[in-house]
Amino acid sequence: MVDANAIREVFTKYTAAFSAGKPDEMAALYAADGWIEDPVGSPRHEGIEAVRKFYHLVVNGVARLELTGPVRVAGLEAAAPMRVILPGEQGTQCIDIIDVMTFNEDGKITSMRAFWSVDSIHPA
Amino acid sequence: MVDANAIREVFTKYTAAFSAGKPDEMAALYAADGWIEDPVGSPRHEGIEAVRKFYHLVVNGVARLELTGPVRVAGLEAAAPMRVILPGEQGTQCIDIIDVMTFNEDGKITSMRAFWSVDSIHPA
Repeated sequence: MVDANAIREVFTKYTAAFSAGKPDEMAALYAADGWIEDPVGSPRHEGIEAVRKFYHLVVNGVARLELTGPVRVAGLEAAAPMRVILPGEQGTQCIDIIDVMTFNEDGKITSMRAFWSVDSIHPA
Repeated sequence: MVDANAIREVFTKYTAAFSAGKPDEMAALYAADGWIEDPVGSPRHEGIEAVRKFYHLVVNGVARLELTGPVRVAGLEAAAPMRVILPGEQGTQCIDIIDVMTFNEDGKITSMRAFWSVDSIHPA
C-alpha cells in the first residue's frame, strides 16, 4: 500500500507540474474516477477527462504553486497548505489554499478539494 | 448567515481555549450534533457529550495550540494549518495538524476532522 512518503511526493509533483505549466502531468496524478472540487462548494469535475480539462483551463505556466508547510498525511487522506502566486500588471497576487486529497492504494488521487475563496486573495 | 470572519473567529477561540486548558469552552463552539474525527481515520466522537468528553481527555493546560497560517474559508467549510506544542521532560515536541471544519448557519462547528499522524510529530 502507498505510504506517507509516497503521498507527500504526489504533492511535490503536483505543485511542480502546476508551476511548470504541465496540466497533463497534473492529470496523470489522478485515478481514472478521480474528481476535483475547486473551490470547495463549487460543482465537481468528475473523471479523468474532466480533471484534464480543468487543469488545461487553470494551468498556464505563469502562475506558480508552492507548499507553505508540511503535508499532513492520515492514512489514505492528506492535507497541505499552499499558495498560488499570480504575477500581473497590477502587481503580484497570492491565493492562500489548503488542498485536501484522498488516494487509492496505487497512490493516485481519488479526490481533491481546494479550500479557498476570494477573500483568500491578497497582494504578495 | 455566518460569514467568513465569524468562522475565522471560531478558529481563534478554539486555539485559545485549547491553550488555556478550557475543554468546556472548546465544546461550546460545537453544534449539539457536532462530531470529531481526530486523527482522520479514527472512530468519530459524535454529539456534544462525546465532544466534551474528548476535549476533557486531550486538553490539559500544558499543551498549546496555535495557528501557523491563515484560515481558508469556503462557504460553511474551512481549513487551517496549526500545531500543538507539547512541553516535556525530554524536550518540547510539535505536532503539525490541519483541522478541516464544517459549520451550521449559527456559526457552530458541525464537524471537525484533524489531519495528522505520528509522523507529523517532531522536536520543536
